Parts: sequence; C-alpha cells; structure tokens
Amino acid sequence: MEWVEIIGILAGFFTTIGAVPQIVKAYHSKSVGDVSVWMFFAILAGVILWTIYGLIQKDWPIIITNGISMLLNGTMIYFYYKFTEKSFTRKKR
Amino acid sequence: MEWVEIIGILAGFFTTIGAVPQIVKAYHSKSVGDVSVWMFFAILAGVILWTIYGLIQKDWPIIITNGISMLLNGTMIYFYYKFTEKSFTRKKR
Repeated sequence: MEWVEIIGILAGFFTTIGAVPQIVKAYHSKSVGDVSVWMFFAILAGVILWTIYGLIQKDWPIIITNGISMLLNGTMIYFYYKFTEKSFTRKKR
Repeated sequence: MEWVEIIGILAGFFTTIGAVPQIVKAYHSKSVGDVSVWMFFAILAGVILWTIYGLIQKDWPIIITNGISMLLNGTMIYFYYKFTEKSFTRKKR
C-alpha cells in the first residue's frame, strides 16, 4: 500500500467520525442549546450527495465512508430535536 | 458537464461549508458550552490529510474544498476557546 493511500484512508476516517464527539457530548449532557443543527443538515446534505456520487461511480470507499457519515449526522440531528424538546417540555411544566 | 460532476460539486460545497452555521451561531451567542471542540479537531485532522492527499495527487478540487474547510474548522476552534475563556473570566470576577 502506498503512502498516499494511507493518507486517504486516515483522512476518510477522521472526516467520517467527525460527528461522534458531538453525539457523545449531547448524549451525556442532554443539552444542545449552543449547537447549530443547520451544521448537521448541511453536512448531511453533502454526505447524501457524496453517497449518490459514489454509487454512480461505483466507488466503494466513498459509498462506505459517506454512508457512515449519513448515519452519524442523522443521529446528531435526532438528538438535537430530542434534547431540545425535552428542555422545552421541562420549561412548560 | 455531466450529472455526476454536478452532484460531486454540490456534495463538495455542502461538506465544505458545513461548519459555517455553527461559526455564525457561536459568533452571535458567544456561548459554546454545549459544543464539542473535539468534533472540529477530528474534522480539521481529516481535511488537513485530505489537503495533503490532494497535493500529492495534484487534484485541485480536493485541495481547494479541503483548504477552505481547514480555515472554517480552524475558525470554529478559535471561537470555541475565545468564548470559553470569556465565560471563564466572567465567572472569576
């Protein structure tokens, strides 16, 4: 395996798992007030398009890395609304 | 220009500007307590590696999109410490 391939795999790894630290923090703190959900919508739109791009090109590394990113960014959007709703219902009581 | 190229450009656009909504929110709210800085470090590591990958491959779209992402994610990391420090000094007074 050449150097450039290793750099590509490492690069793909870091950009794929990028959302994980924010997911973990939101899950533990249940507080997302400072988080911009639009960031995750923008990235989700991007990785959905990259997945389609990969499918058309039959490029498996692009399909897999962006497919995982889709799941992770989708999870963070779900957490955003779940913990925003929770703090909203708490205020109503 | 073929369909697949348009999809690739759009995908690159969304993933490149992904950090912008969070940067704008942090700049206006000056509050970053719920934000995970490790997310931006992970993505920064990834886009630095993608930029190196692009330089080796002489692939200008990869160099440009990830170069911009480097600046944006670097900006968010700067904002994170700037607004975290500020709220820290306010507590100390």
